Amino acid sequence: MNRKALIAQIEKKKSVLCVGLDTDINKIPEHLLSESDPIFTFNKAIIDATAQFAVAYKPNIAFYESRGVEGWQALSKTIDYLNKNYPEVFTIADAKRGDIGNTSKMYAEAFFNSMEFDSVTVAPYMGVDSVTPFLAFEEKWVILLALTSNQGAFDFQLNENAEGEALFETVVKKAQEWATPEQLMFVLGATKTEYLERVRKAAPKSFFLVPGVGAQGGSLEEVLTKATNDDYGVLVNSTRGIIYQSKGEDFAEAAAEAAATLQGQMAHILF
Amino acid sequence: MNRKALIAQIEKKKSVLCVGLDTDINKIPEHLLSESDPIFTFNKAIIDATAQFAVAYKPNIAFYESRGVEGWQALSKTIDYLNKNYPEVFTIADAKRGDIGNTSKMYAEAFFNSMEFDSVTVAPYMGVDSVTPFLAFEEKWVILLALTSNQGAFDFQLNENAEGEALFETVVKKAQEWATPEQLMFVLGATKTEYLERVRKAAPKSFFLVPGVGAQGGSLEEVLTKATNDDYGVLVNSTRGIIYQSKGEDFAEAAAEAAATLQGQMAHILF
Repeated sequence: MNRKALIAQIEKKKSVLCVGLDTDINKIPEHLLSESDPIFTFNKAIIDATAQFAVAYKPNIAFYESRGVEGWQALSKTIDYLNKNYPEVFTIADAKRGDIGNTSKMYAEAFFNSMEFDSVTVAPYMGVDSVTPFLAFEEKWVILLALTSNQGAFDFQLNENAEGEALFETVVKKAQEWATPEQLMFVLGATKTEYLERVRKAAPKSFFLVPGVGAQGGSLEEVLTKATNDDYGVLVNSTRGIIYQSKGEDFAEAAAEAAATLQGQMAHILF
Repeated sequence: MNRKALIAQIEKKKSVLCVGLDTDINKIPEHLLSESDPIFTFNKAIIDATAQFAVAYKPNIAFYESRGVEGWQALSKTIDYLNKNYPEVFTIADAKRGDIGNTSKMYAEAFFNSMEFDSVTVAPYMGVDSVTPFLAFEEKWVILLALTSNQGAFDFQLNENAEGEALFETVVKKAQEWATPEQLMFVLGATKTEYLERVRKAAPKSFFLVPGVGAQGGSLEEVLTKATNDDYGVLVNSTRGIIYQSKGEDFAEAAAEAAATLQGQMAHILF
């Protein structure tokens, strides 16, 4: 998907909501466990219930990989279902991959060809040749980790060089030499609100994928006032706040309600 | 596997050789393509031919993941074959994973429970909670990226803080607060020989997984004289130099010969 189509969708739905599909067999409603593929059945229901409020979906690859071959089948069916039924939504393989060039190329094949995601999250530690193989695919995106929402972000990402520039800023600056804002986004945790403006300053035109609103404690209002740009410039992810609102038969309705509430808040602030 | 067993195997085989299983359907001998699972058939033959010379095997997960469900089946069969027939070898899932705590836990499940690898490579960018979930598994190892063998290593890993400490050194120091050398190794590229001694100084007791000897240009002799410690302390990986020596019927014999040559050089320098 290209940037123009993403922005058009944001304007149409008045939403920058990304729904995280961290689908855990231990957390989904029990009545689904008798289905032949409970994970896919759950995802399908969540997608159908929330697609009018969300512009992006982000399966967390670990949750599928941990279930082996069966998990990969569920993931594969989920992305195919999204592409077939909701071709307008932006899809993110939250994989946090990154390896030497010939290996990153293989990961790009996995997520852009074998499965047809629009984007993949990539860890920056290994530098340029771990990122560029993903950019060879037209209208496909790299979402590079900059400042993450977890506690461990404090271990290295905020380390400063002699000029007082934090590692996450160095990453954001350097990566813009490798790709344009048409193919490159950054992950920016909503739990680090004191840095939102610094990252926006370092990458004025880029879109940010923002996890950490809700369960992890980040403020939606702060993100939507401090991290946005003229093209909106953010995709705000919510996972637990949407997909696990109910363990009963009404889990999809509960997810729709939570997504509608978030979309309403987004529309109120952004439009 | 525990450290004592690893060292015992190194002494028995007079080898620190790790064979990389970056098995690419486009590079394996053509006569294997008619097999029902060419990737696994290739791996099995390479393993049988080289196991007397190697102490470790390292499947590169990207090469399997890029083939979807079929690839995961080949990977699964490969680790099962190793565990059943060569329980003394150390197995490495070269996955370079790393995510927030609850997600890293899922990756640990994938590589330590669903498949029974001894270790997994992890990227340090997300810090402590991306690493510790892997350490909850007894006698399982994290192999953390410190200084990698690729060109992109120069982008961030060598960045210095105000005290002149490079990021890779900060990573090596910090990570030793999270785990002992009984469960933690570091990746140290053989192509950066000028740093081998600095990393050894920062982690005197740790094992290092060393890629980059051979095809990538690293010198075996420099690694074995500058990066070792009293417990040998290195696993030297070779991939292209071993598994792709011949595209003919004799591919396994050619791999055995290359592995034997490397093992002979290792025995000569280390014992």
